[in-house]
Amino acid sequence: MTTERWLLLSGGVGGAKLALGLDRVLPPGALTVIANTGDDFRHLGLHVSPDLDTLVYTLGGLVNPETGWGRDGETWQFMNAVAELGGPDWFRLGDLDLAVHVERTRRLAAGETLTAVTAALGERHGLRTRILPMSDAPAPTRVRTANALLDFQDYFVRQRAEPVVTGFDYGGGAATPAVLAACAAPGLAGILIAPSNPWLSIAPVLAVPGLAAALRTSAAPIVAVSPIIAGAALKGPTAKIMRELGVEVSATGIAHYYRGVADGLVLDSADAAEATPVEAAGLRARTAPTVMRTLEDRCALARATLDFARSLRP
Amino acid sequence: MTTERWLLLSGGVGGAKLALGLDRVLPPGALTVIANTGDDFRHLGLHVSPDLDTLVYTLGGLVNPETGWGRDGETWQFMNAVAELGGPDWFRLGDLDLAVHVERTRRLAAGETLTAVTAALGERHGLRTRILPMSDAPAPTRVRTANALLDFQDYFVRQRAEPVVTGFDYGGGAATPAVLAACAAPGLAGILIAPSNPWLSIAPVLAVPGLAAALRTSAAPIVAVSPIIAGAALKGPTAKIMRELGVEVSATGIAHYYRGVADGLVLDSADAAEATPVEAAGLRARTAPTVMRTLEDRCALARATLDFARSLRP
Repeated sequence: MTTERWLLLSGGVGGAKLALGLDRVLPPGALTVIANTGDDFRHLGLHVSPDLDTLVYTLGGLVNPETGWGRDGETWQFMNAVAELGGPDWFRLGDLDLAVHVERTRRLAAGETLTAVTAALGERHGLRTRILPMSDAPAPTRVRTANALLDFQDYFVRQRAEPVVTGFDYGGGAATPAVLAACAAPGLAGILIAPSNPWLSIAPVLAVPGLAAALRTSAAPIVAVSPIIAGAALKGPTAKIMRELGVEVSATGIAHYYRGVADGLVLDSADAAEATPVEAAGLRARTAPTVMRTLEDRCALARATLDFARSLRP
Repeated sequence: MTTERWLLLSGGVGGAKLALGLDRVLPPGALTVIANTGDDFRHLGLHVSPDLDTLVYTLGGLVNPETGWGRDGETWQFMNAVAELGGPDWFRLGDLDLAVHVERTRRLAAGETLTAVTAALGERHGLRTRILPMSDAPAPTRVRTANALLDFQDYFVRQRAEPVVTGFDYGGGAATPAVLAACAAPGLAGILIAPSNPWLSIAPVLAVPGLAAALRTSAAPIVAVSPIIAGAALKGPTAKIMRELGVEVSATGIAHYYRGVADGLVLDSADAAEATPVEAAGLRARTAPTVMRTLEDRCALARATLDFARSLRP
């Protein structure tokens, strides 16, 4: 008998919340997360992977519960000393967080893949869930504005996502053997897309050459969870970006975006009236409470999403 | 009128104490320190320069007064997190200290020289004294033992200088334009050799191709301060190494080592009886209290050494 296996495509904070719910309600080892590395960048000479770390910290119980990213009990001695030296301090690295970046950079320089380094980090923190970078090769997301093509962290952190977006360039990269094997794994019951920002967190994953095709060759249903609730995003610039791109800021807008990618969309109970337009867009619709404040919220949304995906099996 | 200029060849802790005394008793800008970088190494992907940092921290008033190296008020969050990840923790980098290594590594990777990075660091901390790395290119010291050729920090920190030494290999490197200019500066009144470990801290400086020759072309007298007092070293493995190499553990042993290099040797008042054998070895001798516990001790030794050097002028 093959264990049911699940894939989750995820970005950072919002995705990590659903990942935690799935991690808790599924049997150990059943979940594999394919994580966006389009936000990865070199900073102070270090390889920083924000979404991978948010996932590890969240699943490992290390995350700062106030922010949803970074580490609980973090201190900032290093960063303050960098600022004192006149070094760049717009992207703040905590003392604990820094250990991960330094260790990752050291191992990558020694020839290990990002996949191997991430696996070792997960193992060290006793994770039940595997976290796979979407690509071992750099695949940086860049943000198009009227006047410039911005590096992702320049746009997102330094400029606080304030510039008006006209589009995105997704980097190259390549689907890794581990991701291809996960897509072809026997017993793959479903592929879930976290309520992460579709343009900043999910599109980079789907843009990795070979990755979307590998997902499509699986017979497993693909179900997305809408990051838009009642016409707004809970956090981050998703709604702002949708407006700037001329996309309707609604679950239906998300459904249109995921048309041809996902088979179904979980939309918030507040948006029940949109089930019909979502289905008209070609996706099956399921409503559920999608706001994840507590661990119980996360587990409940995980269960609802899994049930929905199971119902879509061919 | 040209200002009197002085050079000091120095390693870490002991050398930095004399450097501080000289820095305080000489006019601002009169002192240039040529520092050993034979201990430099890459650790956790970072370029660590222990002696340069000890000099900057000491002259900048940032040093931990208990150890003579590292920073006052240091914290260890990063290092503990590295250990938690299973990363190498035998060479401990504090959170504050780390900022220097990361900033240095970043600037070197961006194409700056170690000389330029060190100058910027000194400027940032308001130093009156210039600190010049002996070489911009790597010039790593290696330690010969009966069975192995050890990297310096492996010998010194990981193995606590316990292996029995049979000799040393000094790395390549090259005298930098800044060092050559300092050796040729008008008004060079003297070249001092700090009471650092001759084999571990001074010999690597003198072994840099072109550097000893540049010192010799100057007419300035060269005066060393003995690191051996009453047959022992105040700290570190100097006496142990001398025994292992079959060198007499005395100021006279130091005089023999510096024969042909230095014109004079400052020996401790406790070793006044050695003035004659030191002079028999071909160096002029001067006794002075050389134990530097307080800032006043450091200034007094600085004054005595400067006076002695001035007396040796041709």
